[in-house]
Amino acid sequence: MLLRMSTLFLRTLREDPADAEVPSHKLLVRGGYVRRAAPGVYTWLPLGKIVLENVAAVVREEMNRIGGQEVLLPALLPREYYEASNRWTEYGDTLFRLADRKGADYLLAPTHEELFALLVKGEYSSYKDFPVILYQIQEKFRDEARPRAGILRGREFHMKDSYSFDIDDEGLARSYELHRNAYIRIFDRLGLDYVIVSAMSGAMGGSASEEFLAETPTGEDTFVRSTASDYAANVEAVRVPAPPARPVAGLPEAEVHHTPGTPTIESLVDFLNAAGLGRTFTAADTLKNVLVKTRAPGEKDWEILGIGVPGDREVDMRRLEAALVPAEVELLDEQDFAAHPFLVKGYIGPGALLGNKLRYLVDPRVVEGTSWVTGADKPDHHVVGLVCGRDFTPDCTIEAAEVREGDPSPDGEGTLYAARGIEIGHIFQLGRKYADVFEVDALGPDGKPRRITMGSYGIGVSRVVAAIVEQSHDERGIIWPREVAPADVHVVGTGKGEQIEVALRLAGELEQRGLRVLVDDRKGVSPGVKFTDAELLGVPTALIVGKGLTSGVVELRDRAAGTREEIALDDAVERVVARVGQGG
Amino acid sequence: MLLRMSTLFLRTLREDPADAEVPSHKLLVRGGYVRRAAPGVYTWLPLGKIVLENVAAVVREEMNRIGGQEVLLPALLPREYYEASNRWTEYGDTLFRLADRKGADYLLAPTHEELFALLVKGEYSSYKDFPVILYQIQEKFRDEARPRAGILRGREFHMKDSYSFDIDDEGLARSYELHRNAYIRIFDRLGLDYVIVSAMSGAMGGSASEEFLAETPTGEDTFVRSTASDYAANVEAVRVPAPPARPVAGLPEAEVHHTPGTPTIESLVDFLNAAGLGRTFTAADTLKNVLVKTRAPGEKDWEILGIGVPGDREVDMRRLEAALVPAEVELLDEQDFAAHPFLVKGYIGPGALLGNKLRYLVDPRVVEGTSWVTGADKPDHHVVGLVCGRDFTPDCTIEAAEVREGDPSPDGEGTLYAARGIEIGHIFQLGRKYADVFEVDALGPDGKPRRITMGSYGIGVSRVVAAIVEQSHDERGIIWPREVAPADVHVVGTGKGEQIEVALRLAGELEQRGLRVLVDDRKGVSPGVKFTDAELLGVPTALIVGKGLTSGVVELRDRAAGTREEIALDDAVERVVARVGQGG
Repeated sequence: MLLRMSTLFLRTLREDPADAEVPSHKLLVRGGYVRRAAPGVYTWLPLGKIVLENVAAVVREEMNRIGGQEVLLPALLPREYYEASNRWTEYGDTLFRLADRKGADYLLAPTHEELFALLVKGEYSSYKDFPVILYQIQEKFRDEARPRAGILRGREFHMKDSYSFDIDDEGLARSYELHRNAYIRIFDRLGLDYVIVSAMSGAMGGSASEEFLAETPTGEDTFVRSTASDYAANVEAVRVPAPPARPVAGLPEAEVHHTPGTPTIESLVDFLNAAGLGRTFTAADTLKNVLVKTRAPGEKDWEILGIGVPGDREVDMRRLEAALVPAEVELLDEQDFAAHPFLVKGYIGPGALLGNKLRYLVDPRVVEGTSWVTGADKPDHHVVGLVCGRDFTPDCTIEAAEVREGDPSPDGEGTLYAARGIEIGHIFQLGRKYADVFEVDALGPDGKPRRITMGSYGIGVSRVVAAIVEQSHDERGIIWPREVAPADVHVVGTGKGEQIEVALRLAGELEQRGLRVLVDDRKGVSPGVKFTDAELLGVPTALIVGKGLTSGVVELRDRAAGTREEIALDDAVERVVARVGQGG
Repeated sequence: MLLRMSTLFLRTLREDPADAEVPSHKLLVRGGYVRRAAPGVYTWLPLGKIVLENVAAVVREEMNRIGGQEVLLPALLPREYYEASNRWTEYGDTLFRLADRKGADYLLAPTHEELFALLVKGEYSSYKDFPVILYQIQEKFRDEARPRAGILRGREFHMKDSYSFDIDDEGLARSYELHRNAYIRIFDRLGLDYVIVSAMSGAMGGSASEEFLAETPTGEDTFVRSTASDYAANVEAVRVPAPPARPVAGLPEAEVHHTPGTPTIESLVDFLNAAGLGRTFTAADTLKNVLVKTRAPGEKDWEILGIGVPGDREVDMRRLEAALVPAEVELLDEQDFAAHPFLVKGYIGPGALLGNKLRYLVDPRVVEGTSWVTGADKPDHHVVGLVCGRDFTPDCTIEAAEVREGDPSPDGEGTLYAARGIEIGHIFQLGRKYADVFEVDALGPDGKPRRITMGSYGIGVSRVVAAIVEQSHDERGIIWPREVAPADVHVVGTGKGEQIEVALRLAGELEQRGLRVLVDDRKGVSPGVKFTDAELLGVPTALIVGKGLTSGVVELRDRAAGTREEIALDDAVERVVARVGQGG
């Protein structure tokens, strides 16, 4: 490949686009990689198309390595399949819907679980046919509420989606592991700095799901990681380590105190510390009981739950929802309290809950032998020294309390801190959801039908391009990892003599050696502009044919290291080939 | 590449799909290349995806060879650009339209002239930047009224569309010629039997446009070709050769005859031949005058035109429309006749037209010195011996008469006959239509802005796959040309001994030699089924490892020639490599 800048459809920009906030957006537009066609909808110019294909090629190689078979499904799909899976409704405004000339409803597929399930149902029928992994690299459409950050969150984007089909759970676990390893190889080859985070708590017996997040301060996803280990997780997936249970024997009896005007934790702690009880209280000594109601899908009635968390922490509704999924959750409203007069707002304790057969779920830190200040179930009264396992027994634990910087890491090493990342991959054991909808069965060895189990796995191919730039750039431009760079070497000819001619000759020789070459053969463009463009474009290695040519010298530049080295013209081709061959 | 049929996501079918009428649809579905997802919307299974990519690779290579630069535009586009070009309306029901969550109108692009014009306007500004050729291979969407024939006429399909941008007409002609030659190379490499037909008559000074039609009896497009030369054209584009003018001197005077009850050509000819005028008349001796009205785009008023054609031919409305494009055309209705009493229906002659300042356009065969029987502009009267150039002078000629089998070929060699084809490519000198809409200018060497001129060029990449199958199949299955075949060789292991093992070994060796190999390593599948599948799938070369293995013999089969040859096992790899290398 030899691209000549004199004819390349490329115009770099010196100014950041007005709508750009993040570096990848600014640099990909300024470098002439992409152009905006509509909100969240982008055109890939020649260099951008090459980079996009380079990413796709890595993905394809690693998918083929695990036995994935490439297919290509349409984007335009009839409503009926998504109606069957309920995603026609569930997807809400994010789904692009349209009608054809006969008035039949269609959608632009955001992902293809339904169609892949039907495809496998149509072709395969015996346990001997499985396992199978199918994938495609294709345009996806999602009507994002706030398309932003250029190609980082677009409405039409490129995605690799794959689907595994297995006859049993062990098979699904194997297919999942194959994908996990393939994703590690892919993101390693792409030079990305990423973490794998648990995406679901699994508290409800849910299936395994992990996200691959490229860590960057501009990322939309927050997660926590450990200061001392490689532990990382979505906040929803953090499992708080339970302290060991303590002996109950010898703990002081619980005592009810009149605590007037203490409906908040803060006012309660202040009151207690002023009450001369012989010890100092903190918010962490109190047990806050939050009342919610929950309703399983398809159910009509709500169930009231008590959620007990240490008083120094809020209930994190996202964590609570993730713990109770697929049920809905809402806080109790005034009407609910009115209907249950035993719930004394501001002074609710375990007693009223358990005594009235409401389920009571507590933070994992509330273990046997812990002693708490909590509500006494009558106005202006609290109980001090209420011991878990002696005075009350919760129904079970729940991951609902907020996670804070400095919390101990669940793996026991270091403490947690918050980080931000871009979701570049997601692997998910779907299980039998879609197979149940479409009755995807295979005959087992015993001649009886077995329901297939599925996994789904995505990589945002176009988003990965942006994620790479987010992680690999400086104030002057992009610094491409070699595997995705639009070229191996950028040969720049600059000067009034035969520099451009020599640059073209070297470029031709390098192409002959199998390198992908970009050559700046523009006439009438100043050296400064050419060097600025080279740094903006970000090809890993540059070969400058400039003033030194008269003394037989050219310059070898390394974009990432920022190094420059004068080398003999006669050695130039070998030196570049060697540098590219080293991957450096 | 080594594909093993034991794990390949492929199930062949013995029965034709119920909705299939044409061979390519039947065979591509039966061979497991494609599956229907919705009307006119198809999924490409693994082997189909390979074939599709093979076609795309040939297209890409030849586009790159003429300096085309690959980009990738989105499918989802805002209404405003197509509103500006008027295609939002013009495209009618064929355009898929949708609204986003904010109610903004979008469409799924059927082609991308507007966006490419805007793209070039955004990047380029000087005459030095031109010419440029940009292309993409991408999904297109058209809501066809009758999607049919599988992937031959789909609603979501794959297309290569390219656009040339030049500073002047000579440049456009060069870009057009580059594409024409590239298309010839592409379709030659793809092994297609095709003709290049003129797509427009050019009568209105229109720009050059040609279609590439793959000739097949199942094609949707009709065209004419010569029995004796390679002349071929769309019926709309046939230019009737004008006979030489003849001397007027000495021709009999025109005479008006009372011809009661002769409103049709047939009744007129019968009457004249019974009238004893001393000669025999045929319909070709009469001049039929058809009245139409036409209106240019944006105009309010209609203009009435007289169209004179030899009485043995009908006016072909498609040819007439093509000749008058972009104006609309309609036949006169009763009201129009009532408003123009000098038009005597059934007896209209050139006199009333020219005498009342209506334009009168005639078939090219109506040359000076030809003598005609035609209407005398009063009921029941005709004039005999009305001579063109003496008694009337038409305003100009028009291509409106029907073209018939047996008509002389316009190039003077042989006669015309009708043929059918599939449109696989279209090249078109668009001119300044879109550049005018979006004001795409470049500064000329004189510092003054010049309007850019565009060409647009399409290849139906997915349709080409079907066209190849239409032309290259037999009753047993597909016969792929080597360049697009899903594999170079199909190694079939069949038997109860070590045949499958040996087949796999040979397949591995062939892959090592750089061949793309499909190996049938299925156990428990009969030889008959394997051979039937091999013929259906249509890989050019098959290597059968069967019964002969015990005596060291395998069989080499050629799908196209239908030949079989026993060869020594030890020679098998070399023989196959040689055969593939020869392209045979």
